[in-house]
Amino acid sequence: MLTLDFHPTGRHFLQIPGPSPVPDRILRAMSYPTIDHRGPEFAALGLQVLAKVKQIFQTQGPVVIYPASGTGAWEAALSNVCSPGDHVLMYETGHFAWLWQKLATRLQLKAEVVAMPGTCPTTGLPISWRHGVQADLIEARLKADTGHTIKAVCVVHNETSTGVTSNIAAVRKAINAAKHPALLLVDTISGLASAEYKHDEWGVDVTISGSQKGLMLPPGISFNAMSAKALEASRHASLPKAFWAWDEIVEMNKTGYWPSTPNTNLLYGLSEACDMLLDPRHGGLPMVFARHQRWAEGVRAAVRAWGLEIMCADSAVYSPVLCGVVTPQGVDADAVRKLIYERFDCSLGTGLGKIKGRMFRIGHLGDCNDLTLMAALSGCEMGLKLSGIKLQGSGVQAAMDYFSAHAAPTALAKAA
Amino acid sequence: MLTLDFHPTGRHFLQIPGPSPVPDRILRAMSYPTIDHRGPEFAALGLQVLAKVKQIFQTQGPVVIYPASGTGAWEAALSNVCSPGDHVLMYETGHFAWLWQKLATRLQLKAEVVAMPGTCPTTGLPISWRHGVQADLIEARLKADTGHTIKAVCVVHNETSTGVTSNIAAVRKAINAAKHPALLLVDTISGLASAEYKHDEWGVDVTISGSQKGLMLPPGISFNAMSAKALEASRHASLPKAFWAWDEIVEMNKTGYWPSTPNTNLLYGLSEACDMLLDPRHGGLPMVFARHQRWAEGVRAAVRAWGLEIMCADSAVYSPVLCGVVTPQGVDADAVRKLIYERFDCSLGTGLGKIKGRMFRIGHLGDCNDLTLMAALSGCEMGLKLSGIKLQGSGVQAAMDYFSAHAAPTALAKAA
Amino acid sequence: MLTLDFHPTGRHFLQIPGPSPVPDRILRAMSYPTIDHRGPEFAALGLQVLAKVKQIFQTQGPVVIYPASGTGAWEAALSNVCSPGDHVLMYETGHFAWLWQKLATRLQLKAEVVAMPGTCPTTGLPISWRHGVQADLIEARLKADTGHTIKAVCVVHNETSTGVTSNIAAVRKAINAAKHPALLLVDTISGLASAEYKHDEWGVDVTISGSQKGLMLPPGISFNAMSAKALEASRHASLPKAFWAWDEIVEMNKTGYWPSTPNTNLLYGLSEACDMLLDPRHGGLPMVFARHQRWAEGVRAAVRAWGLEIMCADSAVYSPVLCGVVTPQGVDADAVRKLIYERFDCSLGTGLGKIKGRMFRIGHLGDCNDLTLMAALSGCEMGLKLSGIKLQGSGVQAAMDYFSAHAAPTALAKAA
Amino acid sequence: MLTLDFHPTGRHFLQIPGPSPVPDRILRAMSYPTIDHRGPEFAALGLQVLAKVKQIFQTQGPVVIYPASGTGAWEAALSNVCSPGDHVLMYETGHFAWLWQKLATRLQLKAEVVAMPGTCPTTGLPISWRHGVQADLIEARLKADTGHTIKAVCVVHNETSTGVTSNIAAVRKAINAAKHPALLLVDTISGLASAEYKHDEWGVDVTISGSQKGLMLPPGISFNAMSAKALEASRHASLPKAFWAWDEIVEMNKTGYWPSTPNTNLLYGLSEACDMLLDPRHGGLPMVFARHQRWAEGVRAAVRAWGLEIMCADSAVYSPVLCGVVTPQGVDADAVRKLIYERFDCSLGTGLGKIKGRMFRIGHLGDCNDLTLMAALSGCEMGLKLSGIKLQGSGVQAAMDYFSAHAAPTALAKAA
Repeated sequence: MLTLDFHPTGRHFLQIPGPSPVPDRILRAMSYPTIDHRGPEFAALGLQVLAKVKQIFQTQGPVVIYPASGTGAWEAALSNVCSPGDHVLMYETGHFAWLWQKLATRLQLKAEVVAMPGTCPTTGLPISWRHGVQADLIEARLKADTGHTIKAVCVVHNETSTGVTSNIAAVRKAINAAKHPALLLVDTISGLASAEYKHDEWGVDVTISGSQKGLMLPPGISFNAMSAKALEASRHASLPKAFWAWDEIVEMNKTGYWPSTPNTNLLYGLSEACDMLLDPRHGGLPMVFARHQRWAEGVRAAVRAWGLEIMCADSAVYSPVLCGVVTPQGVDADAVRKLIYERFDCSLGTGLGKIKGRMFRIGHLGDCNDLTLMAALSGCEMGLKLSGIKLQGSGVQAAMDYFSAHAAPTALAKAA
Repeated sequence: MLTLDFHPTGRHFLQIPGPSPVPDRILRAMSYPTIDHRGPEFAALGLQVLAKVKQIFQTQGPVVIYPASGTGAWEAALSNVCSPGDHVLMYETGHFAWLWQKLATRLQLKAEVVAMPGTCPTTGLPISWRHGVQADLIEARLKADTGHTIKAVCVVHNETSTGVTSNIAAVRKAINAAKHPALLLVDTISGLASAEYKHDEWGVDVTISGSQKGLMLPPGISFNAMSAKALEASRHASLPKAFWAWDEIVEMNKTGYWPSTPNTNLLYGLSEACDMLLDPRHGGLPMVFARHQRWAEGVRAAVRAWGLEIMCADSAVYSPVLCGVVTPQGVDADAVRKLIYERFDCSLGTGLGKIKGRMFRIGHLGDCNDLTLMAALSGCEMGLKLSGIKLQGSGVQAAMDYFSAHAAPTALAKAA
Repeated sequence: MLTLDFHPTGRHFLQIPGPSPVPDRILRAMSYPTIDHRGPEFAALGLQVLAKVKQIFQTQGPVVIYPASGTGAWEAALSNVCSPGDHVLMYETGHFAWLWQKLATRLQLKAEVVAMPGTCPTTGLPISWRHGVQADLIEARLKADTGHTIKAVCVVHNETSTGVTSNIAAVRKAINAAKHPALLLVDTISGLASAEYKHDEWGVDVTISGSQKGLMLPPGISFNAMSAKALEASRHASLPKAFWAWDEIVEMNKTGYWPSTPNTNLLYGLSEACDMLLDPRHGGLPMVFARHQRWAEGVRAAVRAWGLEIMCADSAVYSPVLCGVVTPQGVDADAVRKLIYERFDCSLGTGLGKIKGRMFRIGHLGDCNDLTLMAALSGCEMGLKLSGIKLQGSGVQAAMDYFSAHAAPTALAKAA
Repeated sequence: MLTLDFHPTGRHFLQIPGPSPVPDRILRAMSYPTIDHRGPEFAALGLQVLAKVKQIFQTQGPVVIYPASGTGAWEAALSNVCSPGDHVLMYETGHFAWLWQKLATRLQLKAEVVAMPGTCPTTGLPISWRHGVQADLIEARLKADTGHTIKAVCVVHNETSTGVTSNIAAVRKAINAAKHPALLLVDTISGLASAEYKHDEWGVDVTISGSQKGLMLPPGISFNAMSAKALEASRHASLPKAFWAWDEIVEMNKTGYWPSTPNTNLLYGLSEACDMLLDPRHGGLPMVFARHQRWAEGVRAAVRAWGLEIMCADSAVYSPVLCGVVTPQGVDADAVRKLIYERFDCSLGTGLGKIKGRMFRIGHLGDCNDLTLMAALSGCEMGLKLSGIKLQGSGVQAAMDYFSAHAAPTALAKAA
């Protein structure tokens, strides 16, 4: 029988920036018996879920739900709108932007990387990984592409590897300013349902997302939301595809069904997650976003009090989902994480790729609350000290001060 | 909140040939909290699951687990071993073979179909859909391919749309007899863990399977098992792929991890499913196969007693997973299914593609037992009669006679 | 870890007359985290549950919920209204009536038994166990009690050991006709929420019930519903009691709390069960009762077709909850049950007390449906035959004929 | 459907001294289908559970498991060994001792209370509620009872209302020193499986316990463990009883069954709980006790740092289960608790009876760990400050210092 008990007692604190903790309501929903995906009860479920998911993406257009994890949805987005050898412009904000570019290359696209150049003089960390997308760099590059060979601009909305968000509306404005026909593809795998995201209003052509972050589901579901322009492009794109092809899915979804077998039990969970996020009694999406912002500020207050550097160097684009914490030079961030995991039963995110060992990440998303974060920050503070790091002050104290001084938005709403 | 209650009372009988009913043990395992897929507990889980899955495929080679449903694994198999425009030979045993061929075509392969020609004079049903793969047809075609342009032979082990299995060892023998280098790709999505399957011994190059049939899981996991020859081929195959690419997955699996996010909670379920199937106290896989054979024979006894035709016309290749029941000329099989669903809360499989409306399918796989089948057969018998079909005799009586006369193999094993 | 796998595959058929199968909705509800039974969320739950439970008992008065199983509620009823040595009249309809009398005796009451005398000439079974309460016997006894020493009349509404119900309104009428002040105590542990029951309208003083039958919960909750007269009597009754004492519970329940620790998770389940039973979309209690009547008739059709005797000898009081099946002389009913359990993974009720070995019981209550009963009846028919019993005909066939000819009341309601 | 969502996001911190948080393993075990409590699978379960429970009580004698909550087990203990009017000596250590005495009085026993006299000059709190049992007071009283009219001495091992334990071995010694035949009855409802408890070695005659504390189950199961002397006494005790009567239960338990319906699903949970507590890989009971002691010390370090008084005034008998925190004069402890509940989603225990409003209780028992306590302490610290209480220092800091300096015993065991 399944046993997962590295720690003998108590509940694990899963404070990575996704998969995030799955609420009991969702785990219970997912454990209902699997039903016939060709029967009438399934169609009723399918139509409901598809309608609710659109509200989450803030779009009127179709949203395709894949029975696959997020990397698949990256591939889906590209293969539905690109042809072999197509030129795509990919902005490198961090490791996931880098992985997406690598995937584009494997798909035989010509993936050109844009990024801020250089490394920080003090930390040696890549500057582009500490800032959001610089829309002017994209605008300049597109203006230079007078032949319009660039088919798509790909950016990451919330960089899971760094805790930096990007201004998507600004990217759209840049593309428009350059009068360039390129499609705008946005990965908000770790942003959706935690950070505000407006597919239609921001003029995104394809939005990619996944289940295991703000949607509070286990991994296994991913999404493509698409504009009319993207749908039109997909009719002419010739990258080979079948499982990912939008056409049949969008068509069959009209009846609540899927062309191939959907992952029924995760759809139960998705239905429940949407109900929780959209629940008007709790303020719906605006309140969801507001509480993420507040948690994020509390966590950053702690990091500042410790005297450690926040990975995101631009306060205008702090992520409401996670905080990257740069460890002092000479300290292996992964050794700190390991100590915290073993001593305090708390998982933190590792530094990825170019910043491995230089930082760790604290997730504060989804089914979270103040005391869960106080637990995580206590674990971090104890772990940092036990690792021999001299802290300037108590981050735990700073976070308590912040949370005490700023009541949760929901509580205020109830009082009002 | 999630409500799925088209029927106000009692347990639904899910008698489609997959998704099959998910046992409580597996649903409970799946509802454990999601853990960090980069942490040490996950690696321990990953290594265990990967080792157990090999036993299910009866292979020493690697098995790739995709966080995606079965159609994806079809695409994965082809895109890992084929290059654009490659010629593949696909044997049409039924609707799923036909769908796989359609998918190959979408992937821009040259998919040549082999099949027995013609339709049954009495029923009008396609002859090739009522028989398993005719290995001699494949042998002849390969011998004619003197230039060895055919890169792969694709066959379906257990045709879910008809209830016909195919002799895979015979296909391997045919390829060898033709001295042809084509790879052998086999879909056993609905056969694995219900019908005997030997990836290594039968000389299969790529086996495709899924979670929601004999493995008794919800949909959302699919597999590729591969031979050394297939792995070698994958190094030179140029179909664009990333999510499906074997190379990175096989490499990272050595440490118990995956390159992209695996679907953690379904892996919990897969681990539990393997434990159930391989449990030596219950006789392991041989007993699993034996009980499916017995259930199948009991169900066929019922169909014969009703005087209805079994879709599979060759008793040597009856499926142990499902039985296709041909309804009399002029009777809409789907109307019968609908009546049974509405009146008796039992889901049966529909006729697919070319045989839509002409037959329905009774699944008898996975977490099943005698009385569950008696319930399903009772529902069928009542539904057939209520639909105005004149039955020769009582199938329910015939099945009771069969099950009474033939004790379940497990019971025998315990007595011994 | 917990393993309950005497049978290696498939779902067990729990066809005893309680505990009945617990629906998934209820099991899921019960697995929510335990909360503080002194906190505000609990009070909200408590008030809701107490209000809903009254509807189930069809009473305006208080219903006390005990965190204990049914035997405790028997004791509670007696100890709240009786003083040591009190004379109570107990009608013996079967084994549970007999057990209740035994319990009354242990509580130092003078428990006088009323029953129809004698045994059946053909079967040797006690006649009183094959009929419901004979109200005239009670009336005669009460009339003879001119000194009004009898404090309470105790009857069982649905005798779980035999499948016989009793006319409670007639008993009340008899007491009134005798102009006797005795309280009327009724056990409907196995009747509530399956058979129609009207605490107020029928003039019952104390109703005793439990969770594990028509309420579809696991055992662990039991009830006392009481009239104003019973509450008044409880103020003067001097049997020692504390845990069972109504006064403090009724008082604290007004705020949604309990004086001692309630069993939180079963209350979650009870709340869900009430929602299911009262759901207006499915017709509420009237439809619940109607479907039990129909199932019962289908099962009896089977027993008659087998040529076996139904334990209940009076068709006016057949139980809608279970059917007692008398096995032929010389056949050990428990050996038949054992064979059915081992071969067909189906639990049936044993013969209890005076009728041990002479009969078995088929439960058809709670979360049941037609095909579940067809499964159970198939198991019985195969088991009876394998036990060497010569059956007159096929009960399975008879039940199918009945269920086919009589559509479930819910289906009709939907069609209407 | 069941909705319990006063707080819109995150996991509730249930830090009352019971019911304690129920681990997922136990909730999953409890949600297995209910089985026939008269069938062979149940007997296998029953025998296992009964054997494991004895290890928890550290006894060779029988342990009776009641399908009822803890108050019932108090009544059971008394009614099995007492006769109406019997004289019992009850030591008042706090509210639960007081409630037990009240219950004894309702059972028509002559319940004499022993206690330390007076109230604290500074706090006004009853002195006896701040200390454990004073065995010399009991010894003196028993010596004075030369006629041996006292039938039983009743003490509470772990006073849930105050956080004070009592030395049970010393009480036994006192009874022996007085050469008095009185039975020793001990309530360890909130102590068992958190604080060391030795039924046999300490010479206890009846131990009373419950499920919802150290056993980590929901409420609904309670226990009596009894000595040979207690069993002998029960044969002559004449308080009316039936549901609680040991004789039939002990007899039937020999076969793994119960005379009345046991609460099957909670027994699943109990089986799982015992497996977790006794698991040799995690050090078994000694490690369970050691980790509770450490948590308790960490929490007390916090209370001291705040400058608040600990309810327990004798460091020799600090409870490892909970800590009573006395709020400053003039501060309503319940208002503080309410604020912490509403703002920080954390439940704390209220002050009960004589100390209502004067203190609150922090539970640190069962399925707990360091960061869960850091969360709770953070909630307390923020709540105390927001309530306007001036704290001497940071309790959160003190607890972090303690937990950092003292690694959990399990971790040490693994390192060794």
